Amino acid sequence: MLEKIDLSKETAKEEYKKIITELELRVGALQRDAKELKIPVCIVFEGWDGAGKGTLINKLILPLDPRGFKVYLTHTAQSEEEIMRPFLWRYWNKTPERGRISVFDRSWYRRVLEDRVNKSVKQNQLEQAYNEINHFERQLTDDGNVIIKFFLHISRKKQGKRLKEMSKDKVMSWRIITEKEWKHHKQYDKYFDAYEKMLENTDTDYAPWTIVEAHDRRFAEIKIFKTVIEALEKKIAEVKNAQKNNNKKKEVVSSKAAAVGTSTLDKVDLSKKYSHDEYQKKIGALQEKMREIEFKMYKKRAPLVVMYEGWDGAGKGGNIKRLVQLMDPRGYEVHPVAAPNDIERAHHYLWRFWRDIPKAGHIGIFDRSWYGRVLVERVEGFCKEHEWKRAFKEINEFEEQLVNFGVVVVKFWMHINKEEQMRRFKERQEISYKQWKITDEDWRNREKWDAYKVAVDEMLFRTSTTYAPWTIVEANSKYYARIKVLKTIIKAMEEKL
Amino acid sequence: MLEKIDLSKETAKEEYKKIITELELRVGALQRDAKELKIPVCIVFEGWDGAGKGTLINKLILPLDPRGFKVYLTHTAQSEEEIMRPFLWRYWNKTPERGRISVFDRSWYRRVLEDRVNKSVKQNQLEQAYNEINHFERQLTDDGNVIIKFFLHISRKKQGKRLKEMSKDKVMSWRIITEKEWKHHKQYDKYFDAYEKMLENTDTDYAPWTIVEAHDRRFAEIKIFKTVIEALEKKIAEVKNAQKNNNKKKEVVSSKAAAVGTSTLDKVDLSKKYSHDEYQKKIGALQEKMREIEFKMYKKRAPLVVMYEGWDGAGKGGNIKRLVQLMDPRGYEVHPVAAPNDIERAHHYLWRFWRDIPKAGHIGIFDRSWYGRVLVERVEGFCKEHEWKRAFKEINEFEEQLVNFGVVVVKFWMHINKEEQMRRFKERQEISYKQWKITDEDWRNREKWDAYKVAVDEMLFRTSTTYAPWTIVEANSKYYARIKVLKTIIKAMEEKL
Repeated sequence: MLEKIDLSKETAKEEYKKIITELELRVGALQRDAKELKIPVCIVFEGWDGAGKGTLINKLILPLDPRGFKVYLTHTAQSEEEIMRPFLWRYWNKTPERGRISVFDRSWYRRVLEDRVNKSVKQNQLEQAYNEINHFERQLTDDGNVIIKFFLHISRKKQGKRLKEMSKDKVMSWRIITEKEWKHHKQYDKYFDAYEKMLENTDTDYAPWTIVEAHDRRFAEIKIFKTVIEALEKKIAEVKNAQKNNNKKKEVVSSKAAAVGTSTLDKVDLSKKYSHDEYQKKIGALQEKMREIEFKMYKKRAPLVVMYEGWDGAGKGGNIKRLVQLMDPRGYEVHPVAAPNDIERAHHYLWRFWRDIPKAGHIGIFDRSWYGRVLVERVEGFCKEHEWKRAFKEINEFEEQLVNFGVVVVKFWMHINKEEQMRRFKERQEISYKQWKITDEDWRNREKWDAYKVAVDEMLFRTSTTYAPWTIVEANSKYYARIKVLKTIIKAMEEKL
Repeated sequence: MLEKIDLSKETAKEEYKKIITELELRVGALQRDAKELKIPVCIVFEGWDGAGKGTLINKLILPLDPRGFKVYLTHTAQSEEEIMRPFLWRYWNKTPERGRISVFDRSWYRRVLEDRVNKSVKQNQLEQAYNEINHFERQLTDDGNVIIKFFLHISRKKQGKRLKEMSKDKVMSWRIITEKEWKHHKQYDKYFDAYEKMLENTDTDYAPWTIVEAHDRRFAEIKIFKTVIEALEKKIAEVKNAQKNNNKKKEVVSSKAAAVGTSTLDKVDLSKKYSHDEYQKKIGALQEKMREIEFKMYKKRAPLVVMYEGWDGAGKGGNIKRLVQLMDPRGYEVHPVAAPNDIERAHHYLWRFWRDIPKAGHIGIFDRSWYGRVLVERVEGFCKEHEWKRAFKEINEFEEQLVNFGVVVVKFWMHINKEEQMRRFKERQEISYKQWKITDEDWRNREKWDAYKVAVDEMLFRTSTTYAPWTIVEANSKYYARIKVLKTIIKAMEEKL
């Protein structure tokens, strides 16, 4: 692709002066429209050292309202915290709230550029990386993001000239013209290949690349402005259109529409149980074992995600307590998942879970999880039908990325039947120190048991993958459930270690 | 203090069994009360290696609802991001939202313990550190936090024995019994001194230390539970009482009460101005200079905070644009300060500003700031009178901490008179691409000009310090204001460099 680019393009000074102010005002106005329509925008700048990223970014942001954007500099290597998590973690954390703009000075493409040239990723990781990047961008655009990606292109000769100029200029060498830049210059051909592959593999209809001929600064500036304007205008028109049509006909939410034929839940044998004695005999040793595994995982820097979903009253809380009872609090963290707050609601629903994934060597325990999207959000109509339908794929991709990084993902569905739930609800109401555990919402959810059952069955069906299978826990007997959870985790970790 | 501690205290097993369940239930219930009353709680664990912090923390958190607390492990050294900011930055970021509990496994005391023993802080920094810690804790408790601080004490002999045991035990050595722990053991006396000094200097009525005799685990556990229960009960009673009294008589908010005698604003000479030609002659060179300074600061790792307050329409936005016009966006960030969001409102009002202070070598530009507490919050009654009165001191302490760390703090009051404001408001209404800049709120604020004037005068009076003085910018002439701001920053930075 890059060979065909005509780098001689220029914009004359008079021409530039004639149009730039209008473009600046237009970008400012579109930013305000996007804010009002709650459209999140990512603008990515990649390209050669010396191509003028800093200056061009500054030109682009000057006409913007600073209350609405943030520039992220990610040309530095990963921090320790970042190294201990999948490479996209760093960028998920920086995705914009609805209505805001994130500008990336270098970005998630680092993985397939510098890391590739330096050979710090293996070939199979590289292929994974292209996939993961595409999934990431697709998930964001599906969620309403506009992603605008610029590749600033200059020739090897031009780069050499610019670096020389910049090294001489004291102020310019602020951009830290170090050995690294000169080394990159010598590796121009290697980077050229890496850029070509990047463009080939990640130029998608939902997040296309714009190659900017960056020999002439004025030309580059105009092209950047026009591209941003066009992308925003297109999206804004789309959103307005959708709003108009939406007013005409409301989408019908039918949680039954996509039901799968057979029910996994119906086949679960809930008669399994342990007596108090059997339980007492087993639990201590398993907890000790769990503690040992926590220690071994830490040493080996292996991360673990344990995830609980299940009926209200299925005993998730008590189960977690027994799981962590002998563990060291420095190695695990429990994430209880409630309704999202303001900030979380203004992001992709996976954003908050990305934020909380454990770092290498640590254990993240989720009391409810990202599956809320296909359970409560589906059943209660908090998201649209096409959103929860899309979520199965998104969740599988998310978990695959965790597993690719080395995370062991253990998922539990805590299963009880309706009679047992009733018994427990009543018990909670009767015993004074348990009363806080039972709320009106629990009773309301119970009325929707059947709708939830359909959703759970479809979830189990569509998100049981080889890399992150579901374990159904027969939880009518709390003792049985606690032992099974511990055994399952221990087995999964022993396989890993 | 420590010498007088009787380390032979024990709790018998039967006694322990008799009371522990009740204590656990009580802590759980108090956590729910605190949540409801929106009381934020910090629980700090300091003490000797081998004193059993991990185990004791786990015991304490097991009966808690995991939705309401988070354990922070801060025994690791500062990260790169943390080193580049005042040492309390790391902990401000971890202060709990109202109604939540933060448990610290080691804490901000690291500065006066490990850093002191390792001599990585100088004597004067050490004195500052005690002060800063006390200010930090006072600011939090003034804001409604409960701070419970435990020092887990064991003898040198006991420590040696425990470390030996732990080294043998594979699972225990999870706690990473490395050379570091043994080195600390050899330095028992040095640490003893450091602990003594810490206890002396930071045992305050608002955040007292509890020394826990930690030879006997059961005794320690019971003491920790009882201390937490007592502290929470006391605070809960206080808050309930205050609510009761509040219902009886509402505090009268009188923004005029504390007015200072003379007005600084009245004396400002607003006739100062530059013609377009004069401005054009000066501005370019100053912007170039600013760019150079940005580069030099980066090299020297000197951080800068530039803060704008001023009347609506005083030209803050345009001024900032001219300031950064030639700067490299990788070196500065503009923080426009609007009304706090959900999460911000649930913290101390300084929390969000702590989060955004620039790291060493970078520039943070604040378009409005922490002074909102003594301006809009005061005038509009968004906070109580005793809160904004207290804020003058808090803000001075905050800025002093920045300056102690090496931050240059430049504060501008952008001043125009009422006539000029009216002229600009009208202009904004008339010119189409400026209309978005004028809102109903601007008009409402204008009606309160006199109340704001009183607040501004008092602010200028009470927060003009030697380390962070105010600069009043005569802004009836935008040209004059832009030149003055650039000159002031350049001068401040040249003095620093």
